[in-house]
Amino acid sequence: MKDLRILVTGGTIDKVHDPRTEGLSFSPDGATHLPEMLRIARCHFPVVQLLMLKDSLYFDDADRASIAKAVEDAPEPCVVITHGTGTMGETARFLAPLVGDKTVVLTGAMRPFSLYASDGEFNLGGAVVAAQMLAPGVWGVMNGRVFAAEALNKNVEQGRFDA
Amino acid sequence: MKDLRILVTGGTIDKVHDPRTEGLSFSPDGATHLPEMLRIARCHFPVVQLLMLKDSLYFDDADRASIAKAVEDAPEPCVVITHGTGTMGETARFLAPLVGDKTVVLTGAMRPFSLYASDGEFNLGGAVVAAQMLAPGVWGVMNGRVFAAEALNKNVEQGRFDA
Amino acid sequence: MKDLRILVTGGTIDKVHDPRTEGLSFSPDGATHLPEMLRIARCHFPVVQLLMLKDSLYFDDADRASIAKAVEDAPEPCVVITHGTGTMGETARFLAPLVGDKTVVLTGAMRPFSLYASDGEFNLGGAVVAAQMLAPGVWGVMNGRVFAAEALNKNVEQGRFDA
Amino acid sequence: MKDLRILVTGGTIDKVHDPRTEGLSFSPDGATHLPEMLRIARCHFPVVQLLMLKDSLYFDDADRASIAKAVEDAPEPCVVITHGTGTMGETARFLAPLVGDKTVVLTGAMRPFSLYASDGEFNLGGAVVAAQMLAPGVWGVMNGRVFAAEALNKNVEQGRFDA
Repeated sequence: MKDLRILVTGGTIDKVHDPRTEGLSFSPDGATHLPEMLRIARCHFPVVQLLMLKDSLYFDDADRASIAKAVEDAPEPCVVITHGTGTMGETARFLAPLVGDKTVVLTGAMRPFSLYASDGEFNLGGAVVAAQMLAPGVWGVMNGRVFAAEALNKNVEQGRFDA
Repeated sequence: MKDLRILVTGGTIDKVHDPRTEGLSFSPDGATHLPEMLRIARCHFPVVQLLMLKDSLYFDDADRASIAKAVEDAPEPCVVITHGTGTMGETARFLAPLVGDKTVVLTGAMRPFSLYASDGEFNLGGAVVAAQMLAPGVWGVMNGRVFAAEALNKNVEQGRFDA
Repeated sequence: MKDLRILVTGGTIDKVHDPRTEGLSFSPDGATHLPEMLRIARCHFPVVQLLMLKDSLYFDDADRASIAKAVEDAPEPCVVITHGTGTMGETARFLAPLVGDKTVVLTGAMRPFSLYASDGEFNLGGAVVAAQMLAPGVWGVMNGRVFAAEALNKNVEQGRFDA
Repeated sequence: MKDLRILVTGGTIDKVHDPRTEGLSFSPDGATHLPEMLRIARCHFPVVQLLMLKDSLYFDDADRASIAKAVEDAPEPCVVITHGTGTMGETARFLAPLVGDKTVVLTGAMRPFSLYASDGEFNLGGAVVAAQMLAPGVWGVMNGRVFAAEALNKNVEQGRFDA
């Protein structure tokens, strides 16, 4: 059983409903839902590290460099990154040449965990398992499929990640 | 991307609250929650087959033989079996010599999907991904871990499947 | 026990998460959640009538006139109106001189029913009960309080309706 | 606006799923869900007092006497009592001659709040509103209806409280 770290960067999976704007934002207290998701999943072993809470549409290269640095600094061989769906593929391809012999799996959700009936738990469950099984490199796990970094793209029309 | 079938046999993952007895039972209409779980997960490709809805504590060898037959009859190379946690390991070991070159992954939940805050979606997400990646044989995926058939056992004290 | 009709006009209580925009909108199929809410509440007797699905910020006098007409046409003495929180008070005051000897109660939610952890069920439960008990006229029931039409105003800062 | 106290006595509304027995019980930590229910309902004004957490099928006259004492001691004129559905009517009739000029409303749920899709929030919303409007005496509010103490009885066949 390999040790595993979850790096939290934000994205829809961690958003909450803001009753003032009727839109989605992050918790005003800057918290992530990952510990709660793991508690419900009865999955006790991952280390959770909150790196940032950002919508990935607003990621720039400095954000991606800080993710690469966190992967490099992780003592575990397996890293799951929770990430917005908007630019998940871009980040995967940015990280691909930088992760050495680590296995990195990006995941996220089309609907926030905090709204229930979310794809977040299903995606996270797949990512945690895949990160322990896949070869070193950068991958995405979404909606029941494993994607190589170069093939990780949202199907905007269907509202999911697809082969 | 490999084709995948989900065989439903019952177990806690598919149970519902019965307001008359205050216990858990299966839907009086004999339905499974798997199609709803996959819809929420935005995971459109598995074929769902309802084999039975039973508590695995009451499985006998005839039940397990019918599961083995359904695995054998499945045209897909990858099969996920939803199963009660009580005797998941026994079924895994019963099936192990019988599945040929198919990859079979058992999964389930400690808390029913219909009660929300369930580990079912997380476990199912892991099982669907693992079934596409693992070698032929029988495996279990629960609570973020992959188990070989011989090591698949519930930790009753902790209320989860554990290394 | 008095007969009761629920007139659905839209508002946050009936909104759903739109994964494309990450905002809230109404179901593309034009459906209301009220029948599902009543089923969960085990409250079988109200008649549900879908009048429109609109954000009350965009209501004009023609919309309010059609609500007044629906109240007038209702054969039941008690009418609950589900309504957006943004202009609930305006509609109450518009209707007040027009409802004759009917008891009309406006209600809604700060968070959509479809996102769970909503105030919608609690508010609806209060409105259904209050509509059977209050004197003829127009009232609002939100967040555990009954308001006369002239005192029905959202506390935007606190995110609730308040004394 | 009248001050209101909620006396918690247990019942299905406050039960949780026990994964070891697959039955329902109360939280091992002895906590009630009422504060969480009120937070979700954005209903900030009731005082919550945890009296006991018991299945009302096991209530005896000493339990009911302690409820009567708590009603008597309450400084507020309006009291909501959360209570099991099994003997809600018995407790109502026990309390009826003992409550003086207080308005007391019993409520509860057929399905626990912690299992979601519960009638608990709807019932609580009705009870909180009714307690502020009804005449002194003992009443029940369940599933959208107000019942006098003598008419408060569960319809076991339909799984609800009914006229």
